[in-house]
Amino acid sequence: MDFSHNEKTQAYLARVRTFINEKVLPVEGQITAENKQMNSGDNWQTWQTTPTIEALKQQAKEQGLWNLFLPDEVLAQGLSCLEYAPLAEETGRCFYAPEIFNCNAPDTGNMEVLYHFGDELQKQQWLQPLLAGEIRSVFAMTEPDVASSDATNMQATIVDDGDSLVLNGRKWWTTGLGHPNAKVAIFMGLSNPEADKHQQHSMVLVPLDTPGVRIERMLTAYGEYDAPYGHGEMVFDDVRVPKSNLIMGMGKGFAIAQGRLGPGRIHHCMRAIGAAERALELMIQRGTTRNAFGQPIIKLGGNLERVSQARMLIDQARLLTLNAAWKIDNLGVKNAMTEISMIKVVVPNMLQTVVDMSIQIHGGAGLCHDFPLAGFAAMARSLRLADGPDEVHMAMVSRLEMRKYR
Amino acid sequence: MDFSHNEKTQAYLARVRTFINEKVLPVEGQITAENKQMNSGDNWQTWQTTPTIEALKQQAKEQGLWNLFLPDEVLAQGLSCLEYAPLAEETGRCFYAPEIFNCNAPDTGNMEVLYHFGDELQKQQWLQPLLAGEIRSVFAMTEPDVASSDATNMQATIVDDGDSLVLNGRKWWTTGLGHPNAKVAIFMGLSNPEADKHQQHSMVLVPLDTPGVRIERMLTAYGEYDAPYGHGEMVFDDVRVPKSNLIMGMGKGFAIAQGRLGPGRIHHCMRAIGAAERALELMIQRGTTRNAFGQPIIKLGGNLERVSQARMLIDQARLLTLNAAWKIDNLGVKNAMTEISMIKVVVPNMLQTVVDMSIQIHGGAGLCHDFPLAGFAAMARSLRLADGPDEVHMAMVSRLEMRKYR
Amino acid sequence: MDFSHNEKTQAYLARVRTFINEKVLPVEGQITAENKQMNSGDNWQTWQTTPTIEALKQQAKEQGLWNLFLPDEVLAQGLSCLEYAPLAEETGRCFYAPEIFNCNAPDTGNMEVLYHFGDELQKQQWLQPLLAGEIRSVFAMTEPDVASSDATNMQATIVDDGDSLVLNGRKWWTTGLGHPNAKVAIFMGLSNPEADKHQQHSMVLVPLDTPGVRIERMLTAYGEYDAPYGHGEMVFDDVRVPKSNLIMGMGKGFAIAQGRLGPGRIHHCMRAIGAAERALELMIQRGTTRNAFGQPIIKLGGNLERVSQARMLIDQARLLTLNAAWKIDNLGVKNAMTEISMIKVVVPNMLQTVVDMSIQIHGGAGLCHDFPLAGFAAMARSLRLADGPDEVHMAMVSRLEMRKYR
Amino acid sequence: MDFSHNEKTQAYLARVRTFINEKVLPVEGQITAENKQMNSGDNWQTWQTTPTIEALKQQAKEQGLWNLFLPDEVLAQGLSCLEYAPLAEETGRCFYAPEIFNCNAPDTGNMEVLYHFGDELQKQQWLQPLLAGEIRSVFAMTEPDVASSDATNMQATIVDDGDSLVLNGRKWWTTGLGHPNAKVAIFMGLSNPEADKHQQHSMVLVPLDTPGVRIERMLTAYGEYDAPYGHGEMVFDDVRVPKSNLIMGMGKGFAIAQGRLGPGRIHHCMRAIGAAERALELMIQRGTTRNAFGQPIIKLGGNLERVSQARMLIDQARLLTLNAAWKIDNLGVKNAMTEISMIKVVVPNMLQTVVDMSIQIHGGAGLCHDFPLAGFAAMARSLRLADGPDEVHMAMVSRLEMRKYR
Repeated sequence: MDFSHNEKTQAYLARVRTFINEKVLPVEGQITAENKQMNSGDNWQTWQTTPTIEALKQQAKEQGLWNLFLPDEVLAQGLSCLEYAPLAEETGRCFYAPEIFNCNAPDTGNMEVLYHFGDELQKQQWLQPLLAGEIRSVFAMTEPDVASSDATNMQATIVDDGDSLVLNGRKWWTTGLGHPNAKVAIFMGLSNPEADKHQQHSMVLVPLDTPGVRIERMLTAYGEYDAPYGHGEMVFDDVRVPKSNLIMGMGKGFAIAQGRLGPGRIHHCMRAIGAAERALELMIQRGTTRNAFGQPIIKLGGNLERVSQARMLIDQARLLTLNAAWKIDNLGVKNAMTEISMIKVVVPNMLQTVVDMSIQIHGGAGLCHDFPLAGFAAMARSLRLADGPDEVHMAMVSRLEMRKYR
Repeated sequence: MDFSHNEKTQAYLARVRTFINEKVLPVEGQITAENKQMNSGDNWQTWQTTPTIEALKQQAKEQGLWNLFLPDEVLAQGLSCLEYAPLAEETGRCFYAPEIFNCNAPDTGNMEVLYHFGDELQKQQWLQPLLAGEIRSVFAMTEPDVASSDATNMQATIVDDGDSLVLNGRKWWTTGLGHPNAKVAIFMGLSNPEADKHQQHSMVLVPLDTPGVRIERMLTAYGEYDAPYGHGEMVFDDVRVPKSNLIMGMGKGFAIAQGRLGPGRIHHCMRAIGAAERALELMIQRGTTRNAFGQPIIKLGGNLERVSQARMLIDQARLLTLNAAWKIDNLGVKNAMTEISMIKVVVPNMLQTVVDMSIQIHGGAGLCHDFPLAGFAAMARSLRLADGPDEVHMAMVSRLEMRKYR
Repeated sequence: MDFSHNEKTQAYLARVRTFINEKVLPVEGQITAENKQMNSGDNWQTWQTTPTIEALKQQAKEQGLWNLFLPDEVLAQGLSCLEYAPLAEETGRCFYAPEIFNCNAPDTGNMEVLYHFGDELQKQQWLQPLLAGEIRSVFAMTEPDVASSDATNMQATIVDDGDSLVLNGRKWWTTGLGHPNAKVAIFMGLSNPEADKHQQHSMVLVPLDTPGVRIERMLTAYGEYDAPYGHGEMVFDDVRVPKSNLIMGMGKGFAIAQGRLGPGRIHHCMRAIGAAERALELMIQRGTTRNAFGQPIIKLGGNLERVSQARMLIDQARLLTLNAAWKIDNLGVKNAMTEISMIKVVVPNMLQTVVDMSIQIHGGAGLCHDFPLAGFAAMARSLRLADGPDEVHMAMVSRLEMRKYR
Repeated sequence: MDFSHNEKTQAYLARVRTFINEKVLPVEGQITAENKQMNSGDNWQTWQTTPTIEALKQQAKEQGLWNLFLPDEVLAQGLSCLEYAPLAEETGRCFYAPEIFNCNAPDTGNMEVLYHFGDELQKQQWLQPLLAGEIRSVFAMTEPDVASSDATNMQATIVDDGDSLVLNGRKWWTTGLGHPNAKVAIFMGLSNPEADKHQQHSMVLVPLDTPGVRIERMLTAYGEYDAPYGHGEMVFDDVRVPKSNLIMGMGKGFAIAQGRLGPGRIHHCMRAIGAAERALELMIQRGTTRNAFGQPIIKLGGNLERVSQARMLIDQARLLTLNAAWKIDNLGVKNAMTEISMIKVVVPNMLQTVVDMSIQIHGGAGLCHDFPLAGFAAMARSLRLADGPDEVHMAMVSRLEMRKYR
């Protein structure tokens, strides 16, 4: 047992940290302002990329801090899940950092799907430009008309029609759909209703300019459009794509999803841990520089106890996540199901708690865009639902726990 | 001891409930849509009143369901704090209802200030149109540059200059400032720095079109602009008003604030209880009409326990608030300090908890504007800071508790 | 709505409070010491009554502070459930007080059963001496071999055999069984297995000296035997009693239980609230008289916040319980099911939380018998199971809540 | 980073686990019964060793599963803190296991003190028989008359008097004092009041048969005497010991305490984690073998969510503790202060929560001695106070956290 990062990780960690501290955090406010000016309101059709982010992406790429999430020696740096984890945490400290390193959701997950399950043509057509950061992608899975916590409820259909597949259905919470560079969706739908429960669905690549693909609106999460990314509601109306757009095979949807979600949850959770560290940092900075009743706020009432509670919650959540990453690397996703489900519950709830404490210390400033806290709160709240709500993951944990007693 | 409402209260309650159920809730979505269409984004200069709300205001006024909060037999219905409380709860079930009955913050508090502490001229000029619902008002107290949890930190100044008062300073979280009908601010500032700590500040009426009053921006709370009301940041730059705009006298700011906040907190809390009831109602409706894993969601895992927890939290918070209202009515605000501080902590936290549970049952739908839940979450979060953060009120409760042992 | 106690209540409250403060609390330590000396260990066969308690009982009886729980004008003071509630709270501040006023469980519940459902002969034989405080009684319901949270699991049998009833079965958590004055049990068992689910059980009076009644052992609750009362495990082995010992009729067990439990839960909860007040009082006294790191302990860290949290939890729990009492008095037990179940969950959990805080301030002293806190902790923990575990009551609350939406 | 135990650890773990599962757990009830029969009540003068435990000690010793805690290759197995941690967890599953392996508190801590800070004579006289399991020892630090959370409050005195040291003072919570084999105390007292705050105290070895050493009583913790060990209150009345009994030197008390507490807290916490695992195991076993309302209890309401919460809490607490052990081994106690304080807060609170859940599933059975749960609850509650209350450790964590921002 060894709780230290290996040298390779430490080296990358130092580089990523320096990049973020020296290049990203100093312009965080500027990016927010640009975004607000260029991408305000719900008129997503006019949203644009943010120049400061684009420039930083270029620099990160040049420095080789690019696609760090991908465990491939050639296409990327060949970092394992555990080696990438602390880097993901670092990027989580600033909303804009993940994209700058081409390590943002949902593109990372989509790239992993293509990397692991795509054929050569699909890789060439979509994985290459995604790895290059030239285009962006979305994942169309959740549906507004059913309880998506039970993925087998999915109603959107994929019908085999000669050389084509015909897709129909309504999807929402398709994150990133508003971005001007979004070019392709991975669409999941019911293709083999007669098969076994977890072999009825397939995943299909759908260029967003395919006839029949319609974006209805962008949704707010806790009031935020998250422009220029956005969370879309979209309709697939007799959308016809060539059969070569099918990933892996008919009925393989859940098999792919399972493979996609393991590392993806590590990434999400590590970023959330970074956000929590940032929230704690801001809490202490604010609390030590403002006075009330003759003392720095941080010393009043139970505030210092909250600092320690934040530290205890964060450190536990991080260790749990690193342990899950280690299990994925060493025992495979299938043998890390308990760990993956646990972090999916523990980490967003931890973030929600820590951010709430930090907001409380900030007062009104914590609620508005002057600090990233309200955004972190929305992120935490969303993460408790995205990729399966807390309750579904708790049910998984208890089911596997009970299994030990059979 | 009697836990039933008197007949007068029951009669008003029935009327208010009927009005809300039959006239307001059915158009809630329509108002949201109007607002979104007319008042989207941060261009507050163009925000407009919502026609559906304006029409409903007229109806409420005609039915005598108007200014219910004001304990005056002539100007209003002469309802005591305890009698108004359940009506305030009822209005809390829908964001738009309080304004429809001319019972919305911060106007209610401002009207109470004018009613109790204003002189005849001030009443004529500002209280009359406010009671008529013709204009709206704001309260400029919180400042961005200091920890406003300690109100004695307030830095904005009021200088006596012959027949005028000259005001300088920066204020934020001035709620309602973006509304097209907002015409006057009650400004609180440091006027007598040499006096005793709680006699250094004064309140002054400032028409919003006075030279030197500058609105800098509208702030988001959890991403929401709350258009067409808004939360403003504003600058007072050598603003000169006649001395007759001073309320009550120099140095009376805290005395007024204390009188304003007692009933105001009852109102806020009762509305929050109404919001919690609505959140629970939506939680059960959603949970019983969506299925996952072969069952209505509400029956899965610990969801039914959460229903009962919500009921227990709400009922306790309501009783605590009604008890506080009764104390204000029967023993006066000064003898109800513990009770007022307690509800200020208990109720918003309860709302935050209940809304969080309800959002969880709604999934993604709970995060966006399809339901009022994200708005309630923002409201709960803001209320834990507005009018003094939780910690300040807990300190008050413990201070008074300790005093029993002297 | 009126939150003040009526004059009758206030008068009794003053008398009970004076009696407890002046006569009971000053000898609390002495009673504990007597008990320890006379009734130590598990040799329950030798347990004796405590002379100091016996003497105080006599005084309370002479002052008419006796059987206050019984809503009968002739046999007692005719106090309603709501009028008795604050008196019960007062007695809860000291473990020994309830018995001193002949208001202790399980005798109160048993007396109520006899009062409401017993026939004249049963009343004469058992209610009279119980009301006189000459004997004590137990309630034999819970069984070790089944999940007693579902009362229909009860396996002990009652067989009709001519003029007799023959009882068999094993019961435990029969509180008070170790007391030398314990003379009679109310035994609940399965008598009509063919009837509807809630009409299969009956209640029978069993003198403890009946052949076949065997006490196996006394149980500890969190290490406490609670001598000289005790919690017994007992066997009924072909116990034969005359049919006249049947209460109300065959199959009436649940009907009686329901009637018994409503007011009984009010009493339990109000006593628990009194215990919580005492715990808070001790917490403040200890915290203000001991110093660490240069300050009274109570001022360190989040301790003062905990004082305020205790106050908020207690006041809410009390109002909820008084409201339940009012509902029982005014609408009947059947229409107060939600309220009764809510307090059964809320109050013991509140007590557990408040006592835990108080123990923490006391340090090691809080764990041992120098203070009543460890005893209160055991009481809180037991109450979360006795008369139905939290979960069963939460299920009741949510079931009734859901029913509103049918 | 590597989350697997090394081979040495795994081998010992397998042996310890087998020993406990095959030899200890099967006789757990028998030991409890023996104890109850031989060592009931507070007559500690007659307490005896339990024959079954003595026999098992012999077997463990023969198998080389003995003194595993001591990081010495010759005197023990040379296990590091991290290597011993999982073994300590394993022993925590059963109250009696630690002693069987000669790994019980407070002897382990006392042996470490002697091992690291004792001179040759002290080692020969006391460490040898302790390592052999022939005698037992106690630690006399906490005092009844002051807030011991601030160790500098300690009032007991050590006066240098020629060749002797003269000790005076009152100590309590001296665990193990009632055991018939208890032969020596490490006494901590004020020896150099004029020195710097953390150099005023010393530690002295005091044979328990020294004149002037008086045991006043045994204390209960949550009603438990924990016979035959016990928690004593004792008086040192002009106790005279030779100066050679001084450990390390005058004024070295805190230096020794610091060294003693680091690994000691790891041990305590790992045992508590084992207790939590056992509580969860019992919870599932009970919950799956008892039915209510037509289902195994474990499937009712939120019970399965509680299973998953227990798993998440335990796994996080374990990782945090292993991480602390790793830091102690690799960076030293001084550089692991945050980690040590964190586990001291996190683990006992976690145990308290998990045990509470398990008791709730057990119903009344969980409160009495039929299961180890009430004992675990007392242990958790005590651990939140022993070796510094939660609040002191939270203060340490926040102080070190704040230091990062200087």
